[in-house]
Amino acid sequence: MEMAKIGPGIAGGNNRQTLTDEDGEGRHLFKKWCDEAGLEMGVDEMGTMFARREGTDPAALPVYVGSHLDTQPTGGKFDGVLGVLGGLEVIRSLNDLGIKTKHPIVVTNWTNEEGTRFAPAMLASGVFAGVLEQDWAYARQDAHGKHFGDELERIGWKGSEKVGARKMKAFFELHIEQGPILEDEEIEIGVVTHGQGLKWLQVTLTGMEAHTGSTPMYKRRNAGLGMARVTELVHEVAMDYQPDAVGAVGHMEVYPNSRNIIAGRTVFTIDIRSPEKEVLDAMDGRVREGIATICEALDISFEIEQVGHFDPVAFDTDCVKAVRDAADRLGYSHRDIVSGAGHDACWINRVAPTAMVFCPCVDGLSHNEAEEIYPEWAAAGCDVLFHAVVETAEI
Amino acid sequence: MEMAKIGPGIAGGNNRQTLTDEDGEGRHLFKKWCDEAGLEMGVDEMGTMFARREGTDPAALPVYVGSHLDTQPTGGKFDGVLGVLGGLEVIRSLNDLGIKTKHPIVVTNWTNEEGTRFAPAMLASGVFAGVLEQDWAYARQDAHGKHFGDELERIGWKGSEKVGARKMKAFFELHIEQGPILEDEEIEIGVVTHGQGLKWLQVTLTGMEAHTGSTPMYKRRNAGLGMARVTELVHEVAMDYQPDAVGAVGHMEVYPNSRNIIAGRTVFTIDIRSPEKEVLDAMDGRVREGIATICEALDISFEIEQVGHFDPVAFDTDCVKAVRDAADRLGYSHRDIVSGAGHDACWINRVAPTAMVFCPCVDGLSHNEAEEIYPEWAAAGCDVLFHAVVETAEI
Ligand SMILES: NC(=O)NCCC(=O)O
Ligand SMILES: NC(=O)NCCC(=O)O
Repeated sequence: MEMAKIGPGIAGGNNRQTLTDEDGEGRHLFKKWCDEAGLEMGVDEMGTMFARREGTDPAALPVYVGSHLDTQPTGGKFDGVLGVLGGLEVIRSLNDLGIKTKHPIVVTNWTNEEGTRFAPAMLASGVFAGVLEQDWAYARQDAHGKHFGDELERIGWKGSEKVGARKMKAFFELHIEQGPILEDEEIEIGVVTHGQGLKWLQVTLTGMEAHTGSTPMYKRRNAGLGMARVTELVHEVAMDYQPDAVGAVGHMEVYPNSRNIIAGRTVFTIDIRSPEKEVLDAMDGRVREGIATICEALDISFEIEQVGHFDPVAFDTDCVKAVRDAADRLGYSHRDIVSGAGHDACWINRVAPTAMVFCPCVDGLSHNEAEEIYPEWAAAGCDVLFHAVVETAEI
Repeated sequence: MEMAKIGPGIAGGNNRQTLTDEDGEGRHLFKKWCDEAGLEMGVDEMGTMFARREGTDPAALPVYVGSHLDTQPTGGKFDGVLGVLGGLEVIRSLNDLGIKTKHPIVVTNWTNEEGTRFAPAMLASGVFAGVLEQDWAYARQDAHGKHFGDELERIGWKGSEKVGARKMKAFFELHIEQGPILEDEEIEIGVVTHGQGLKWLQVTLTGMEAHTGSTPMYKRRNAGLGMARVTELVHEVAMDYQPDAVGAVGHMEVYPNSRNIIAGRTVFTIDIRSPEKEVLDAMDGRVREGIATICEALDISFEIEQVGHFDPVAFDTDCVKAVRDAADRLGYSHRDIVSGAGHDACWINRVAPTAMVFCPCVDGLSHNEAEEIYPEWAAAGCDVLFHAVVETAEI
């Protein structure tokens, strides 16, 4: 796959994080392919790319299809990319077959879906859906203090189109499941009915830097121990709401991070999720309460900043039906499924009828360079995507 | 203080880590002062600096005095520096008073005492004492993969003198306590009789990188949670041996360190200490056993590398007595004390009669840029150091 050669990882996957030079390169390659397919490219002020195939009725609302080309720092070759290139395949097939649709079809590459370099995830689709402010998005900083807005300009992909101006008949996103359910049940297609809700809480603990050897245990104000206890707490809270919750701390920073210094400050992000809003809110409450208790016991102070949030999503019944019917018609085994991950589709669902198609991935593994799918799985997913999109775009 | 201007910290302290350009600059300033005091500088293959004032009997074994000029990344202005410049003050006072000693006196700046950039701490004194191998020391790597040996050459302070060739009549090190005992008890001088033992265990946990949202709790192999549990374990083990133990994890690295990825790998260093060898060994055993149990429960694997170790030290009775007698004679309040921190003196004690002088520091705080001492405390410490050194060097 040509795209996977851009921003190669260290273990067979990809590191093509948002607004890096590699992201820019990936965009150019995608644009080249879109040009070759005769599409017209629009780019909005958040850098999101929209490649349009005209319909027989240019005034009809377009059907959108796509996902994202950015990756995790140690990302796989399919997370996001499958949905964008799957959308392009829909176009190429229509071209090859000489089929015209009434509604235009627009293949989309949303900027910064992953949220690793700049939190939160699904940043551009969030602005598009009117949930996040564009100025706030521009001001987001990466770990080196670089701003989203500046980096977007730097790589040359800040478009002139107003964000969210486009109206959609529908939006479809094909994605790998990123979890083990479809593979375990040997099912080819996941008909995504819901997306679980998420909160990202960035926590800063402040204790007192001191010498690990000569500071008595009773005098310590250990922000590293505080982070450890909160990490355990998040795990316990998620376990308590099984099977309707997940949670972990995957991002941790320790200052000054020296072997013989008790950490004076730690910064880390809690990721908690549930398909049930009540559960998500209850987890949030328990985590915040627990942090207060932990910090009091350790004589350290804390700040909590919510750097990401979306409520559980129910996708559009008609679009979901279009996906389910396509899988049925084509004879693929399928089941309804809840997305564990967040997707641009979760935001777009607020401003347009939306649904998603999942295909399995090996060992349910994603956010890992070893992420893998079988060609048959990808083909089935693209097939279902094609039929759902074309049915909605009307021949 | 001129030295504190080199490698300024961000909060009033210093960042003059070993073998950085700043360390090189600090060395040049020290050499200039030594030149001005008429001392002859020798530098060994580990970069340790030896500034000699001739004795009336040049063949008599010299008395050594000193400490280190390197600092923590967020270090104080006194940790180490007080002992080197205190040694230089001994020389200057002798010069001013026109006093000649029978034994030469050598002011020493040991390379890489802190051990943050290159573990372990007290690296050059360890090689000098024959406990650590010089080639092994040269091969130590910092977080960017740079080698100790190469960095020593790069800053231009790799001397030609064989390490450990020098014989000493005695070694005296003045240092701030780095703990709260002297200040709490309003005592001016700590007569250091012992140093507690230490182990640094660098632990690598390997789980499986996976998506935080879509990986079910029961499928996780979370190396971040493992690190959190080990951090808590180390704390519990240290608490169980109160008051004869301390322990913490101050260095932690998380891979890939992304908000929505369950950590696939963590690397961190356990620091455990006790003045009792049996306690230190028992802690080591409990920590290793606990790590195995934690990792089994989380289905993750582990490696433990001991990157630092010294047994508890009993300093030389005669040298200790010289310190205690000096404090007595000069009328300073004093008490015997065990060093919680490791010091170059701990290694040198293996090859020469050695003792240490402690002075209090404000709030017992060290390894913190806010580290502070009062001028009277420093003066008292230098006074006692002068008398112990000159008595041993014989007038
Ligand atoms: N699909 C995906 O990995 N999105 C990133 C946002 C999330 O953490 O769920
Ligand atoms: N004195 C001092 O801070 N030494 C560093 C080695 C240690 O961690 O004890």
